Amino acid sequence: MTGAMADVQKQPDHRNLAIDKVGVKDIRYPVTVMDRAQGSQQTVAAVNMYVDLPHHYKGTHMSRFIEVLNRHSQDINLKNLHSLLEDMKSSLEAGRAHIEISFPYFIDKRAPVSQARALMEYMVTYRASLENHLDLVVEIKVPVTTLCPCSKEISSAGAHNQRGIVRLAVRITRFIWIEDMISLVEESASCQIYSLLKRADEKFVTETAYANPRFVEDIVREICLKLEHYPAVTWFSVEAENMESIHNHSAYAFIERHKNGGY
Amino acid sequence: MTGAMADVQKQPDHRNLAIDKVGVKDIRYPVTVMDRAQGSQQTVAAVNMYVDLPHHYKGTHMSRFIEVLNRHSQDINLKNLHSLLEDMKSSLEAGRAHIEISFPYFIDKRAPVSQARALMEYMVTYRASLENHLDLVVEIKVPVTTLCPCSKEISSAGAHNQRGIVRLAVRITRFIWIEDMISLVEESASCQIYSLLKRADEKFVTETAYANPRFVEDIVREICLKLEHYPAVTWFSVEAENMESIHNHSAYAFIERHKNGGY
Amino acid sequence: MTGAMADVQKQPDHRNLAIDKVGVKDIRYPVTVMDRAQGSQQTVAAVNMYVDLPHHYKGTHMSRFIEVLNRHSQDINLKNLHSLLEDMKSSLEAGRAHIEISFPYFIDKRAPVSQARALMEYMVTYRASLENHLDLVVEIKVPVTTLCPCSKEISSAGAHNQRGIVRLAVRITRFIWIEDMISLVEESASCQIYSLLKRADEKFVTETAYANPRFVEDIVREICLKLEHYPAVTWFSVEAENMESIHNHSAYAFIERHKNGGY
Amino acid sequence: MTGAMADVQKQPDHRNLAIDKVGVKDIRYPVTVMDRAQGSQQTVAAVNMYVDLPHHYKGTHMSRFIEVLNRHSQDINLKNLHSLLEDMKSSLEAGRAHIEISFPYFIDKRAPVSQARALMEYMVTYRASLENHLDLVVEIKVPVTTLCPCSKEISSAGAHNQRGIVRLAVRITRFIWIEDMISLVEESASCQIYSLLKRADEKFVTETAYANPRFVEDIVREICLKLEHYPAVTWFSVEAENMESIHNHSAYAFIERHKNGGY
Repeated sequence: MTGAMADVQKQPDHRNLAIDKVGVKDIRYPVTVMDRAQGSQQTVAAVNMYVDLPHHYKGTHMSRFIEVLNRHSQDINLKNLHSLLEDMKSSLEAGRAHIEISFPYFIDKRAPVSQARALMEYMVTYRASLENHLDLVVEIKVPVTTLCPCSKEISSAGAHNQRGIVRLAVRITRFIWIEDMISLVEESASCQIYSLLKRADEKFVTETAYANPRFVEDIVREICLKLEHYPAVTWFSVEAENMESIHNHSAYAFIERHKNGGY
Repeated sequence: MTGAMADVQKQPDHRNLAIDKVGVKDIRYPVTVMDRAQGSQQTVAAVNMYVDLPHHYKGTHMSRFIEVLNRHSQDINLKNLHSLLEDMKSSLEAGRAHIEISFPYFIDKRAPVSQARALMEYMVTYRASLENHLDLVVEIKVPVTTLCPCSKEISSAGAHNQRGIVRLAVRITRFIWIEDMISLVEESASCQIYSLLKRADEKFVTETAYANPRFVEDIVREICLKLEHYPAVTWFSVEAENMESIHNHSAYAFIERHKNGGY
Repeated sequence: MTGAMADVQKQPDHRNLAIDKVGVKDIRYPVTVMDRAQGSQQTVAAVNMYVDLPHHYKGTHMSRFIEVLNRHSQDINLKNLHSLLEDMKSSLEAGRAHIEISFPYFIDKRAPVSQARALMEYMVTYRASLENHLDLVVEIKVPVTTLCPCSKEISSAGAHNQRGIVRLAVRITRFIWIEDMISLVEESASCQIYSLLKRADEKFVTETAYANPRFVEDIVREICLKLEHYPAVTWFSVEAENMESIHNHSAYAFIERHKNGGY
Repeated sequence: MTGAMADVQKQPDHRNLAIDKVGVKDIRYPVTVMDRAQGSQQTVAAVNMYVDLPHHYKGTHMSRFIEVLNRHSQDINLKNLHSLLEDMKSSLEAGRAHIEISFPYFIDKRAPVSQARALMEYMVTYRASLENHLDLVVEIKVPVTTLCPCSKEISSAGAHNQRGIVRLAVRITRFIWIEDMISLVEESASCQIYSLLKRADEKFVTETAYANPRFVEDIVREICLKLEHYPAVTWFSVEAENMESIHNHSAYAFIERHKNGGY
């Protein structure tokens, strides 16, 4: 060992194999994200950052990913992911850069009758890649109430219902509000979910769900139809998963579509 | 390095501090457990094994835990945990031994109307310790249907319901069947859960749940009362957790009781 | 409600949207799988089963998935997944069927010096689909030891090392032993991992890892090269993830390749 | 259903069973916590809130927990948990109140040689109860590097090392800085962990770990000894868990002590 330390990563590699993605995974970092109601929101993200590695290099420099994250964490939004990825490409001397940022996002929601307010959590993930052009996918996870149409139809009273989780991923060519995507999903379920419900609200959500039975199949179809009206979305996948109240497993439905061309 | 390798763990330690538990954690191992209907059942367990360490030793010999597990994994049941713990004490030269064994346990269940059969999973944990006498706790995790009494009462139709998870831990002085503990829990819920339900069954479980609304509070109380009739149980704790269909968080209730003496 | 219950799922749907996948998710079930050393092995699987749903049906019949699983769970292997999927297609009246079966798989391993034996766990997933032809992907998760080449090179003594997890997924056209895939991965790491190591073994694995430093980049490249010799593999992806001993996040590398044609 | 909705929870219960804890679990909420360097820090917490329920009431009012959380989430710290719990007691008309708040806490750390800065995550949990007096436990989870003394001793070169997780819980009678507890743990390991390490730093942490071999047994003992100097701590438990680089399971040690009186 001497004063000039060897740069092992920069050493040549003779296996002639480029690597698709190399980098750091599962870093947790505080980030500031864009919020329609308040301008910005502080939250905590789980972050993965990768670049490609040309065949002639032995390794990448992992510490540089953290330095890039450090420079950009105070302002994470769909509009500046492009510059973050540019920074990754130049700092890592790479041809392609990928980032995945997942964070809980909170919306101040009013209960449907009492108007009582509390924050409701939604999980959001940005997946962005840059080679020559930016590829941007936004994924949201929305908890909803689902009430079974079959159970309602065949039973003399009541109907089984449960918490469902809807995951919607959209590839976009223009900015889109997370809040709009969440509303689109919530309107497709038997009823939306709240953090805070007073008794009058509980009556409302119970009756609303009972009046709007939905299979997981219905939910993914409804979301599909609504997404027709979003030209900014060029591709999407949607999955609905019910934590069935009558089973110990989930009911599941999944649709994926490229928007140019018909269904 | 010489032919006779140093036994670092056996070296004296001068900090004068005994250690309560030292050992191995999160080993996954195939085990054969006792099954009331079939005699035995093969499953896969997550196992933790610990002993105490006297203050004068630097460390324990971790490999011996695996050797003990190897010797006993083909016949794990409440009746022979005592000899497994004796083996740990002598192999590790320890005064106390602890083992925790968690495994999915499957029961062949018939649907309530169609009598269609399928296996239903329950998580079971044995926690056993041995110093001078054996201390034995059995814990089961039972998924159930819960239907909200308040929602039923105040709503013109329907009632929110969901999957609930009940965790019951009992300290026992005599053998007890897992199957009996599971039934006791299932009878305390709005309705029990099945892997396989045909349409006539779905009607039955929907109507049964609607006819038997239960808060988490009701469930833990019902189980408490039923446990009065089990003299083999000297202590228990029971918790009910509802994955609320109308919220993104759980409703929760917990009772812990020593049985000798009143509540 | 009358004696003849409505079949809500069979009702026509007018949204004109076929669904890619609909079914059941996260069922846990005991299964018997093929084992090279012993013929068969009993374990516990997490299972997802889906079919496509034509646009004119409102829903699928979820209970039938469990009935199919019940019929086949006693003999799950790469050779008969085809007939399981055929059964799904006919039972569910579907054009495509998908199944994902994940299970811990145990191999009786001998320690490198002492030859002491214990079972070692590997996670295995079969992903199989059937429309006109069978598509079969096998995924294994192999824990390994990785020792950092850079840390070894620049440090006067020692080198940081850690547990790494390698995930290898292969699309195959012919039968392949899980055991061979696992060996291929283990030979590409700094050292393989064991459940049971006596002191002479610990010396061996420490020195072996120190003699074979590997970045995550090296591991995925080595596996890539070895897979050239498996004509049964038409596509693969391999990822290596190090739970870095010096960081609270992972180092990660990923390569995906279609085998026909060069890299 | 009439204008005046029934208050089902307030109805009398005749089972004569008080409930130890009833409330809400796994709510995620943004909170502002106290930070020694910056005054305050915004993060996201997972929160459980419970009260006791007297035997004569059927249920508790779950929505009130969320209202209390809402009122206090902007200023969560050890100094004002007392008033939060008082608010729970009065809002829920209860004799005892319990809260558990877990959150990632970030500290701006400098690398040991390069002095490069990045945020490092630690998980912190406050567990507080109030009946007549306040009971306060702070738990931290600190990732560290551990290097095996036995492996170093018996091997001709290198030594296996890995990421370890230390969990320290302290019951305190006076305010204590999270930052001090974290330092106490980090000083007891083979080396501390950083988010960002340049090459000179990697050399430093590799050599530091090699110079300071520690079993899990050593780590819990070292922490034990250091806690003697904290009179504010009346009870503690400490566990060290190594994600062994040579095994697929963990090595584990645990000590629990009441401070009044000797060990």
